[in-house]
Amino acid sequence: MQRAEEYFGFLERLVRVPSVAGEERAAQELLASRLETLGFASRWIPLTADLAELPGAGRPCSSLHGRSSLVCERSGESAASVLINGHIDVVPAGDPSLWTGAPFAQFRRDGWMVGRGAGDMKGGLVMALLALHALHDHNALGGRISFVVVPEEESSGNGTLATLRAGVTADAAILPEPTDLNIDVSGIGVLWCEIEVTGSGAHAGGRRSANPLDQLTAVARTIADLTAETAAGDVEARARHVYYNANLGQAEAGDWPSSVPTRARGVMRIGFPAPLSAAAMEERIRDAVARLEHDAACAGCTTRLAFPGLRAEPHALPVDHPLVTAVAEAHSAAHATTSRVLHTSSTSDARFYVNQAKVPAVCYGPVVSAIHGVDEAVDLSSIVAGAKTYARLIPALLAGLRPRPRSSA
Amino acid sequence: MQRAEEYFGFLERLVRVPSVAGEERAAQELLASRLETLGFASRWIPLTADLAELPGAGRPCSSLHGRSSLVCERSGESAASVLINGHIDVVPAGDPSLWTGAPFAQFRRDGWMVGRGAGDMKGGLVMALLALHALHDHNALGGRISFVVVPEEESSGNGTLATLRAGVTADAAILPEPTDLNIDVSGIGVLWCEIEVTGSGAHAGGRRSANPLDQLTAVARTIADLTAETAAGDVEARARHVYYNANLGQAEAGDWPSSVPTRARGVMRIGFPAPLSAAAMEERIRDAVARLEHDAACAGCTTRLAFPGLRAEPHALPVDHPLVTAVAEAHSAAHATTSRVLHTSSTSDARFYVNQAKVPAVCYGPVVSAIHGVDEAVDLSSIVAGAKTYARLIPALLAGLRPRPRSSA
Repeated sequence: MQRAEEYFGFLERLVRVPSVAGEERAAQELLASRLETLGFASRWIPLTADLAELPGAGRPCSSLHGRSSLVCERSGESAASVLINGHIDVVPAGDPSLWTGAPFAQFRRDGWMVGRGAGDMKGGLVMALLALHALHDHNALGGRISFVVVPEEESSGNGTLATLRAGVTADAAILPEPTDLNIDVSGIGVLWCEIEVTGSGAHAGGRRSANPLDQLTAVARTIADLTAETAAGDVEARARHVYYNANLGQAEAGDWPSSVPTRARGVMRIGFPAPLSAAAMEERIRDAVARLEHDAACAGCTTRLAFPGLRAEPHALPVDHPLVTAVAEAHSAAHATTSRVLHTSSTSDARFYVNQAKVPAVCYGPVVSAIHGVDEAVDLSSIVAGAKTYARLIPALLAGLRPRPRSSA
Repeated sequence: MQRAEEYFGFLERLVRVPSVAGEERAAQELLASRLETLGFASRWIPLTADLAELPGAGRPCSSLHGRSSLVCERSGESAASVLINGHIDVVPAGDPSLWTGAPFAQFRRDGWMVGRGAGDMKGGLVMALLALHALHDHNALGGRISFVVVPEEESSGNGTLATLRAGVTADAAILPEPTDLNIDVSGIGVLWCEIEVTGSGAHAGGRRSANPLDQLTAVARTIADLTAETAAGDVEARARHVYYNANLGQAEAGDWPSSVPTRARGVMRIGFPAPLSAAAMEERIRDAVARLEHDAACAGCTTRLAFPGLRAEPHALPVDHPLVTAVAEAHSAAHATTSRVLHTSSTSDARFYVNQAKVPAVCYGPVVSAIHGVDEAVDLSSIVAGAKTYARLIPALLAGLRPRPRSSA
């Protein structure tokens, strides 16, 4: 594919901008600048605190100051409109010393590009751009296309919510999230839970006093047990390879080895199945932890739960939805192979299109490894492969989805 | 007692100087200035890295730059010499918001002074000063007295080691550590152990990958079990109310709720009994953790142990040692009550006098509450009470200890 190397270079530049929560703007500007050369007009939709009150919203953990969603739009005649949505925020790198190179320096290895965000999801954004540029080169870029580049996907989703509130929608939405060139039609519920256990500290040598870390561990285990129990409600999970994990992703306590910590704090990420809502899952968690608190072992500590950040409701597009068919056909036409329908064990901003806006949405994007981990990488050849699919898919969607077969209507 | 209020005011000033590790000098200067008015000459003995190679040494965790032990000496004629040793370093305050006031602001409540370090052990330092000033006021301050004010007691003990290497010693040493006016004759072994577990991170939604926090918890539990098992070797522990605790005093892991942490780090404080040495306890810990590592659950994580900070060897002065008798007699003479012999579940720099310098040493100091905890406090009346004991004890020690009874020689 022409321009592939040009866009790999653009991806390098994009990865070198460490667009962690709160620092997304510079990377968004790079994308806006590139999209403007393809005839898109840019506008910015600021993130505001009141977004958190909308149905499905999360509760951002970083300041919203100066943060906006980027909306790039191209007008034109088309039977239908299409929206491409990608997030520009990346998760922190973990311990940088564990990486082969500096996490945001990026480097290529055996056809992969390694770097925080290369896989989740700057590679996908570049994949979509490459497809648009290919269409542009063939004078085939026309019709109503929106390219939305949002912050806050990893921690709330409120970046996409801001664009929906502003009326940025379409007849179909595609998200170039990393799916290994499969078609991801659903997302599980995901809730963040902050656990804060407070004691009063003590000398480590004293008659044993309650260590908030022990209580934090007990609460996390209780929540993990509840998560597993709740997950059992999804009888299709095993067949679909869906995991409802409870992950204690952050923990901190204490400031001196010989002092019992005064406070321990942890944050979990908890997966849960439909038809549960985030609010219902929160209630289950609060109940389970309240029962634990009556345990004698917790004497002397108080436990407080909070639910900042992600509060993702489960979502699902029917597997026989015309959008799924359209993606599958575009993939087959481009590659003469079949793309698999996927049920992710995570979530994406696709949920807002499906749940809130009633716009069909799927994720389809490149092959990646170790997203959120050390040496996260994207397979560069899969960026080209995915772009070939998008170059067929976008015109097809602009022509309008075929009606859904009656049998499953 | 005259001057009590003056010295409570001095204690207020001392507490307001937050002399945490590395920040001890300003508080030491206050003490030097005060001791010089009582005829003491000050000198400073710098802490150096090679102290860590001496027998019994710890491994300081803070920079040694600009840090010294303060030695204030008074010469004169006396049958024997006496040394008062106190540490000026205090442990961190924990979460300041849990305190009734700001931790280093200090305030008085019902006859107590509340503040980080008020109990451990600025109250004791002031108690000894008050006794010396009382003797001075009565023209009874004479003879060879050293007043040693050290940093690094809480994390290595190398401040006291520096003074011993410089030849600062005496016929007997007393440490005004908080003992509730009891006579503390011994200390348990205390070892710090840093646990670092490294994984490779991952998305929280993936097929379950090893979370370093789980492994940290497992290692800490293994060490706690070993500590309890080792403690069983001290058959007198229960009768003496000695606790060999394992305390996970610090822990930190991860930087994002939806990412499996790349690394988890914890630091434990581990108590162990004589006749074990710190080196032998370290070996036991390494062995126990190595056995755990063969467990399948740890797959994908590597665990590294390090032993920074405190490596305190157990120490004990015989309960019938003439120094113990001298303190008991001074206490009885001052208060017409009996002081109890105490075996602490912790350690103090007394160990260096007893173990390394073969100088008898005991701790005797004020009544305190919540040392290393929230709202740490010292009972002001006990400072006066302890000073009355010291005002009798110091002249007695300068006259020379009576020989130990033959029966227990």
